[in-house]
Amino acid sequence: MADPHTQGAPGADGAEARDGQAAPLWGGRFRATPSADLTRFGASLPVDRRLWEEDIAGSKAHARMLGAQGILSEADVAAIVSGLDAVADEIREGRLAFDETVDEDIHMAVERRLTELVGSAGGRLHTARSRNDQVALDSRLAAKRLASGLMAACERLEAALLARAEAERETILPGYTHLQPAQPVRLAHHLLAYFWMLSRDWARLFAARRAADASPLGSAALAGTTYPLDRGATASELGFSSVIPNSLDAVSDRDFALDLIYASAMAMLHLSRLCEELVLWSSAEFGFVTMDDAHSTGSSIMPQKKNPDFAELVRGKTGRVYGDLMALLTTMKGLPLAYDKDLQEDKEPLFDAADTARQCLEVVAGMVETLAFNRARMREAAGEGLMAATDMADYLVSKGLPFREAHGAVGRLVARCVAEGKGLEDLALDEMRAESPLFDEDVYGWIELEAVVDRRATEGGTGAAPLAVQLALAEDELARQRAEAPAA
Amino acid sequence: MADPHTQGAPGADGAEARDGQAAPLWGGRFRATPSADLTRFGASLPVDRRLWEEDIAGSKAHARMLGAQGILSEADVAAIVSGLDAVADEIREGRLAFDETVDEDIHMAVERRLTELVGSAGGRLHTARSRNDQVALDSRLAAKRLASGLMAACERLEAALLARAEAERETILPGYTHLQPAQPVRLAHHLLAYFWMLSRDWARLFAARRAADASPLGSAALAGTTYPLDRGATASELGFSSVIPNSLDAVSDRDFALDLIYASAMAMLHLSRLCEELVLWSSAEFGFVTMDDAHSTGSSIMPQKKNPDFAELVRGKTGRVYGDLMALLTTMKGLPLAYDKDLQEDKEPLFDAADTARQCLEVVAGMVETLAFNRARMREAAGEGLMAATDMADYLVSKGLPFREAHGAVGRLVARCVAEGKGLEDLALDEMRAESPLFDEDVYGWIELEAVVDRRATEGGTGAAPLAVQLALAEDELARQRAEAPAA
Amino acid sequence: MADPHTQGAPGADGAEARDGQAAPLWGGRFRATPSADLTRFGASLPVDRRLWEEDIAGSKAHARMLGAQGILSEADVAAIVSGLDAVADEIREGRLAFDETVDEDIHMAVERRLTELVGSAGGRLHTARSRNDQVALDSRLAAKRLASGLMAACERLEAALLARAEAERETILPGYTHLQPAQPVRLAHHLLAYFWMLSRDWARLFAARRAADASPLGSAALAGTTYPLDRGATASELGFSSVIPNSLDAVSDRDFALDLIYASAMAMLHLSRLCEELVLWSSAEFGFVTMDDAHSTGSSIMPQKKNPDFAELVRGKTGRVYGDLMALLTTMKGLPLAYDKDLQEDKEPLFDAADTARQCLEVVAGMVETLAFNRARMREAAGEGLMAATDMADYLVSKGLPFREAHGAVGRLVARCVAEGKGLEDLALDEMRAESPLFDEDVYGWIELEAVVDRRATEGGTGAAPLAVQLALAEDELARQRAEAPAA
Amino acid sequence: MADPHTQGAPGADGAEARDGQAAPLWGGRFRATPSADLTRFGASLPVDRRLWEEDIAGSKAHARMLGAQGILSEADVAAIVSGLDAVADEIREGRLAFDETVDEDIHMAVERRLTELVGSAGGRLHTARSRNDQVALDSRLAAKRLASGLMAACERLEAALLARAEAERETILPGYTHLQPAQPVRLAHHLLAYFWMLSRDWARLFAARRAADASPLGSAALAGTTYPLDRGATASELGFSSVIPNSLDAVSDRDFALDLIYASAMAMLHLSRLCEELVLWSSAEFGFVTMDDAHSTGSSIMPQKKNPDFAELVRGKTGRVYGDLMALLTTMKGLPLAYDKDLQEDKEPLFDAADTARQCLEVVAGMVETLAFNRARMREAAGEGLMAATDMADYLVSKGLPFREAHGAVGRLVARCVAEGKGLEDLALDEMRAESPLFDEDVYGWIELEAVVDRRATEGGTGAAPLAVQLALAEDELARQRAEAPAA
Repeated sequence: MADPHTQGAPGADGAEARDGQAAPLWGGRFRATPSADLTRFGASLPVDRRLWEEDIAGSKAHARMLGAQGILSEADVAAIVSGLDAVADEIREGRLAFDETVDEDIHMAVERRLTELVGSAGGRLHTARSRNDQVALDSRLAAKRLASGLMAACERLEAALLARAEAERETILPGYTHLQPAQPVRLAHHLLAYFWMLSRDWARLFAARRAADASPLGSAALAGTTYPLDRGATASELGFSSVIPNSLDAVSDRDFALDLIYASAMAMLHLSRLCEELVLWSSAEFGFVTMDDAHSTGSSIMPQKKNPDFAELVRGKTGRVYGDLMALLTTMKGLPLAYDKDLQEDKEPLFDAADTARQCLEVVAGMVETLAFNRARMREAAGEGLMAATDMADYLVSKGLPFREAHGAVGRLVARCVAEGKGLEDLALDEMRAESPLFDEDVYGWIELEAVVDRRATEGGTGAAPLAVQLALAEDELARQRAEAPAA
Repeated sequence: MADPHTQGAPGADGAEARDGQAAPLWGGRFRATPSADLTRFGASLPVDRRLWEEDIAGSKAHARMLGAQGILSEADVAAIVSGLDAVADEIREGRLAFDETVDEDIHMAVERRLTELVGSAGGRLHTARSRNDQVALDSRLAAKRLASGLMAACERLEAALLARAEAERETILPGYTHLQPAQPVRLAHHLLAYFWMLSRDWARLFAARRAADASPLGSAALAGTTYPLDRGATASELGFSSVIPNSLDAVSDRDFALDLIYASAMAMLHLSRLCEELVLWSSAEFGFVTMDDAHSTGSSIMPQKKNPDFAELVRGKTGRVYGDLMALLTTMKGLPLAYDKDLQEDKEPLFDAADTARQCLEVVAGMVETLAFNRARMREAAGEGLMAATDMADYLVSKGLPFREAHGAVGRLVARCVAEGKGLEDLALDEMRAESPLFDEDVYGWIELEAVVDRRATEGGTGAAPLAVQLALAEDELARQRAEAPAA
Repeated sequence: MADPHTQGAPGADGAEARDGQAAPLWGGRFRATPSADLTRFGASLPVDRRLWEEDIAGSKAHARMLGAQGILSEADVAAIVSGLDAVADEIREGRLAFDETVDEDIHMAVERRLTELVGSAGGRLHTARSRNDQVALDSRLAAKRLASGLMAACERLEAALLARAEAERETILPGYTHLQPAQPVRLAHHLLAYFWMLSRDWARLFAARRAADASPLGSAALAGTTYPLDRGATASELGFSSVIPNSLDAVSDRDFALDLIYASAMAMLHLSRLCEELVLWSSAEFGFVTMDDAHSTGSSIMPQKKNPDFAELVRGKTGRVYGDLMALLTTMKGLPLAYDKDLQEDKEPLFDAADTARQCLEVVAGMVETLAFNRARMREAAGEGLMAATDMADYLVSKGLPFREAHGAVGRLVARCVAEGKGLEDLALDEMRAESPLFDEDVYGWIELEAVVDRRATEGGTGAAPLAVQLALAEDELARQRAEAPAA
Repeated sequence: MADPHTQGAPGADGAEARDGQAAPLWGGRFRATPSADLTRFGASLPVDRRLWEEDIAGSKAHARMLGAQGILSEADVAAIVSGLDAVADEIREGRLAFDETVDEDIHMAVERRLTELVGSAGGRLHTARSRNDQVALDSRLAAKRLASGLMAACERLEAALLARAEAERETILPGYTHLQPAQPVRLAHHLLAYFWMLSRDWARLFAARRAADASPLGSAALAGTTYPLDRGATASELGFSSVIPNSLDAVSDRDFALDLIYASAMAMLHLSRLCEELVLWSSAEFGFVTMDDAHSTGSSIMPQKKNPDFAELVRGKTGRVYGDLMALLTTMKGLPLAYDKDLQEDKEPLFDAADTARQCLEVVAGMVETLAFNRARMREAAGEGLMAATDMADYLVSKGLPFREAHGAVGRLVARCVAEGKGLEDLALDEMRAESPLFDEDVYGWIELEAVVDRRATEGGTGAAPLAVQLALAEDELARQRAEAPAA
């Protein structure tokens, strides 16, 4: 992609010219042209060919507007539009052979084929346009589409988490800090923590889509064009909410790409946390979940082995999306206005980040939808952790014992459990009473996991009451997203 | 910072306990405590001491709410609040000596001093709270404040760019692509391209502030608390718009910090582009601007030398903010829920990124406000570039010549200018007519820079008419920001 | 890539088994297999297919060693080796159709085809091997080859810089600090600064190659194998200098990939500096170099325009290589031993970084070999900068004037030159004598650029004498590299 | 730090001048000087003050050389050297008050104080020197020292790993792939995997130190100096192996800093893997290690809780060192020669990366030295995993059964164990014989963990024989490092 940046004459044969085109167009002062190797090095076609739909949509809108403004004849517009439809068919059906030695980028590939099909009208399509605003247009259309796809994938995972949470209100597992059992929590509560992370990702994706939602078309090479364009008309036909108000900014801005890569990186961050837990929970030592067979791989020799490959792979792909972010941030650093060839390096990180994050969201959604929770093992681990000790001391306090004495008594019981390898609930009442006569039968109910968990009844806590409220909030959030989601 | 994560008993002396505290609190099973070196390694006080105001504000709100809920006595609340005010005075006046061997973090430093001042009531402040939700609270309060400061600095730079743009509507300089002169543009148009970049930064900062604007307080260590808290009351007293709906998420989420670092990184990206241009434009070869003496440094020997140090330093600092972003993204990767000690590493990148970006925004604003534009030199460069050649060909087309012939004729005139080292406007009419008899006196007006520039009259173009519209849009944008800006 | 990790029985049909293989091999406990989408998500074939030569070379060496150790029969070895040669021919000639739904990675693709060709002997090739050590082997062979190619490209650019430097000993241009003219330097000296940067890159590449130069083969899945292998024999046949001494490390280490990516990133850093200068120097304002037509692109309208596209593109690609580094660093963070699926993400950043850096080195070498230095313009700029002022003051000091007075006198002359727009050498002797009677005719020789430059005669300075020494050192360095370079 | 870049006159009062100095030195054309805020923004003293020892050492060497070359008088040299010693004493004892409004950097702070102490001789110290080569000198001296400290810390951790490995030859734990038990390995073997990672870090640090080991002094601002310096003499006095051969490269190169940051980042990568395992192994679910009390933190309420804070913190700090690497890579991108102010941003990432990695190496060494391995639990986990199944099938093969039949028989036994929750070794001989009559009493010995492990007897495997070889290799490596380590 190089910048075409000047004006042909109105009326006549005035295609917007371009830098970087095949030799004949630059004319006489060049004695040599780049070698095949250099041409390949400079070409963006292998990357930007996937923009063909956006490119053709943009060109059709541009041609129609030129017709409406009287810059192109009706006949030219008709020829161009039907020619572009024919090119689209050829590409869609794999019948168009791209030629990297001639087709430097998708814009030139489409235009070359169009001109072969419809003759000189094809050449007039580029009137009042430059590849600088054209590539910005195509990229923004693609970014919007990618963002919509990511939002849909994000929502799928949110829905999966919410559905599993609703079914696991009664499942209790250890809550960890420092990967040490800290307090028992409901599995629904744990899953919802991820729901809320993903809901923030959705919001970031929504904002990134909006950042792309303004049309650069009509900015030409850098300074605007001498033709009486109707920028609002093309913007509107292509579904943009507005027109970019500064032509220099329009051709040199890549914030929209960075915003989308950043949103993808954050989604990967959250997926990496979830997948880390799924790998841990799948381990023999934890044993909290069993991955669905379709989301695992096995071993021909060790029948017990089931590898959480996909969770690992998602975790590992976090690196590449972070790398995409760092790549484009670095490329953009210190670039003077307006268009510099460095900007050509924007598309690979954008596509790679968005594609990777979308795939990973979908893979993890499938994983969450299908994995089996080993409820008994979770409950057992929640009990093993002696996590009810605090509540047991609270019990004594509720019976009137000063906190320090209560803590001391329970501390000794805990030591006994550790020594004997049993849980607090396994202690006989006599054993408890040896430490404090205030213990009574009702202590067993008091330290039951459900009781312990439900005692955390504050807003946002893991108790049944706030959990019900939280589930409702999550449903509302999902409904809101569905209402606000743009059509993909 | 470690996580305090269990509950004391209601009533009594029930301070929320903590992991990671000085040895006596963990009691008997520990035979050794970390060495002084390890304690220093684990301490966050050198970094988080700057959170003292947030910490004290949060503690006052917490104490008042505990009083209102009947969890603390009125007397305790009064003692705590006045004690915290006294601690604040001591810190503000530099009278409080922090002791890193005891005060692991700002929370413990404040609480230790409070307890020295008001006795056992101080110990009861930590009831129903953990350092896990406390540090999340302090960090969110700080992030909101930092975001507000950044928005103000951003707005100052936007205002400076807009003011300079309004004064430079008539200044013309070369517009560049590939750092080659491409088409003449108005300096106002060029400056506004940066205005729009900064306006997007403002929007990102606004969103980052909103991401921090929800209260984690009441989430305790990870699972909520057994006390009947009013989370809405503390949120409201501290100026939060809402309460975080999930306690696990509340203590483990650092998205708000990443959003602010990312917004800072993007602002630095834009500043690096502007500073690159200022360094280029200050060079002897360009000579477009003269930095104000107060924004330059000189040499004792070479009287002509004036170094754009500050612009270079801003450009260089882009790296550190990108590094801050990568640092926290990496730290967060793959962390299981809920609180892990790794999270302690969130504060340095957050503070460094926000501080750096704010300083740089202000330094660049000062630079923009005071630099001198060398209008004559800019105009000269705009003329030298033969950038009117296209418009000269358009002239012939407007007189009826086919475009290709017009282009050929002008091409030969350009070659002559290059050979003779002069501009197109320096050609005599006879010289022009030797190439085409269609040239007439009016060609000189046609190729004047103003005429060339104003011919780009489409929306967003560099012509006088769209420029006036754009300036008005920029004023509206700034007014909108000022109306929406939160109080810092 | 998943890990095959257990042992078949010696003798018999004992292929080393694998995790992650097509369903039938994991046997009965799996009720479902990954969907086509998941299989594609998990497949590495699109990336690792380029390792086919390494894979086949490694397999041939492994088979021969198994034969020599009596683990495979001579007949099996012969069948395997000739079968592998046939597979190699098919791939080389594009006759082998890979099937992503079956061939998860290049190892399985080759083995599948081998078995189709030679029957059950093909299945026995995997005896005492796992894909975990196999992929480490292939990657290390590839890293060595990539490093050698990078070293050759690096050396080509060094040679180009040195050749141009030797021809530009007499060319003088401004030396800059802060992009302000500081002191005149010889162009040869400037070019050699890049030579030395590149020579450090060569050393880093050499070290990275050595980091890859140890054989993991024989480590099997993670713990070694029960077969009596001769690890030294395969290492030696494949050209490795040593054998990795720990099987867990052998399958989980990716330091060699990171070292090569880092070396590539550093080379890109240096190229980005050189390309920045080439873009600057190609600008109308500097005008120091004219890019060869074959290394530029033009514009169909503006005949004077010549864009340094390739220099910009190299500068822009710096970002992607930095991104590759960050990607793999992130992926590796916090991975427990031994093999995790995350490791599959190592190859894309490795290949992308090495390929990009190699292409860029070659493109820049071509650019340096062919660009034209505008010597007159450089000299003019060196004069304009009044950079001889210091030496002029030194002249007066050499005639006995105290330094401060000399400085004052010259300062006034400089002010006059600035005001009158001329150089110090344009001053008449009378004008000089008005400031100090000590000026004499010999001052003109004293402040000639050659004299000024040659006065910097210390080791490493820009004077003719140290420059000659430096050129000889550079020639020695290049000769040493050529002697030490491994065969690619 | 700005660049001082011209020459005073020989003899007289000829201090090398500087850009960026306090206003009076730049003289008349500046009407304003930077504000206090700007001065602080531009100052590097808060960061580079820690270079005071290097700065003074460099200045003493420079002064002595100037004396030996007859550029300074003996009296001046004596005054300067003893003055610098006095300044060093003042700084060491905390008696020197730095003044950021005057002392822009450590170079100016030292020189200012020196001049106060010894008068005009102090001013002559800067003869034939610039802050550009001075800061490069100080940074290189610091980098060498930091590298030596890192190498020592690295070696301490290697020694700790080796010592623990030697004591744990008989301890068997599960070897994991995909965090699933794969094959039993010796703990010594596992620990040695980390030893080898660290030994590669040592080599990288050694190379990074060597990259810093060349003297830039005498390059002055950018072009060398007019004084007859003896660059070899200062290099030698300061312990450098060589002199940098190009003055432009000498003042603009920061490769040595990047090499050291990269080496630090790689060490952190390895530590993050080890710490991840220590956190996992400390969990209730794994229970493989018990951290020493001095390397853990506890909870005042939950007596069973012991948090691996320090391991988590090291893992978390990986992010900041990666960030340091990205920061400096970004800052260096695209900088034109020679000195640019951006380079001032090199020191913070260098110091932060080196300090962090050194602390972390030491903290982890302490952790490894003191943690307790729960051998019984490890062995139990190694047994639970049914990891001997493969070897059990091999047993049958060794008795003559075809592999596929053997695998089938063992598969059914494995299924039985899974169903009954027991290990293979718990099966009665009768139960085994029900699947194959070839089972005999010797099967129990065959599937003992030691037997299974020792069967992996290939070079680099986990068997006792290759392990003994590997331990000896590790001892050799450590001895070699100790012999080659430079004096810190």
